[in-house]
Amino acid sequence: MPAKIAEDRPASSRSKRDAILAAATTYFGREGYEDSKWADVAKAVGIGSTALYHYFESKLHCLYVIMADALEGHIADFERITGQGEDYIETLTAVLRGGFDLTEQEVLRQRVLVAEQALLAIHRTSQREEEARQRARERTRDLEFAWATFLSRGMEQGAIPNADARLATRAVLGLHNSVWHWYRPGGDLTLDKVGDFYVARCLAVLGVSEPAPEPAPARRRAKTKK
Amino acid sequence: MPAKIAEDRPASSRSKRDAILAAATTYFGREGYEDSKWADVAKAVGIGSTALYHYFESKLHCLYVIMADALEGHIADFERITGQGEDYIETLTAVLRGGFDLTEQEVLRQRVLVAEQALLAIHRTSQREEEARQRARERTRDLEFAWATFLSRGMEQGAIPNADARLATRAVLGLHNSVWHWYRPGGDLTLDKVGDFYVARCLAVLGVSEPAPEPAPARRRAKTKK
Repeated sequence: MPAKIAEDRPASSRSKRDAILAAATTYFGREGYEDSKWADVAKAVGIGSTALYHYFESKLHCLYVIMADALEGHIADFERITGQGEDYIETLTAVLRGGFDLTEQEVLRQRVLVAEQALLAIHRTSQREEEARQRARERTRDLEFAWATFLSRGMEQGAIPNADARLATRAVLGLHNSVWHWYRPGGDLTLDKVGDFYVARCLAVLGVSEPAPEPAPARRRAKTKK
Repeated sequence: MPAKIAEDRPASSRSKRDAILAAATTYFGREGYEDSKWADVAKAVGIGSTALYHYFESKLHCLYVIMADALEGHIADFERITGQGEDYIETLTAVLRGGFDLTEQEVLRQRVLVAEQALLAIHRTSQREEEARQRARERTRDLEFAWATFLSRGMEQGAIPNADARLATRAVLGLHNSVWHWYRPGGDLTLDKVGDFYVARCLAVLGVSEPAPEPAPARRRAKTKK
């Protein structure tokens, strides 16, 4: 839980907003969105419920902002990694592996993102909620579009077998995202091990056999990317 | 939407219960659980809200029953299909393909099942809600266990490559279930086409190349199973 921050620091309104987002991500990720109390988030960052409403209209508004921000981060990561690689399969592997190079807080954010997808489908009458919801939905589509474009390019180059790029995108993202439905930090499965397994399986979904078919040691190479 | 059923038919309490479940599945699947009104479900089956509470304590109770029943159906299908096959890969293909041989109502039920997973994690104080929630959670574990056992057997037999059976189970179920997050009946992608694509990809996740690697016509064989 983030440390308490003294109230009334108008100069750091941005950092207070970030502190609220961080605390809410922790609560939503650990307890589940439904079970999290908005008042507990206020308490964690040391502001009253009324002050909280200056930043976020509601718990739901905050959730949508967390989801939209997470997706924007994913798009930026995707563009950064796919923009620099030379070899297609190496780039593909790096972008898949990047999805597992996460801090514990980022894992919680992933859990929130996949667990609360259903709430993104529902129109809101509140303007701020609806704006954040729309942004999250648009970023979801942007990320899918970026993936579909990238996979199409790999098919055109002959780097991966031809397939319906839209279905291939959904399959890879579906498999990749499914991890956050069950993965919990601190268990006997490390995120590294899970990442090794899932990256190889995502490549298999795309018809790519791993460069080196031997077990763990060879796979581990992917992790040392930049 | 199911046809209206005349009220007060004490002899057919079971069928009224089924009618409520069917109507709720349709609403939850089409509008989303959150956006569905419990009173609309009552109206669809032609009973008052008070009578509705005789069958289900709440909208949530009904949701949990839908999820638990769906999972029980999946376990029964899984056991039926895996109990009869001779060839391991054929059986594996048949059980994966069975997940796409669905009526439109069953597709809606799958959507409800995957969309509302997060609600399964939350303890309830109401006894009937909690019982139905526990049953859904237990059936989820039972289905995962049945899959893990089946995959382990395939690995022991050398029919599929060795791997962590628990991770392999989660990957296959994660990929298989991800379809219901986006698939909508009536679009340009038929469920048959989606099924062909996903069955092949689930096999790839398990390290099984398709029997015939040519495109569509060969794959279509899988559909004529049993």
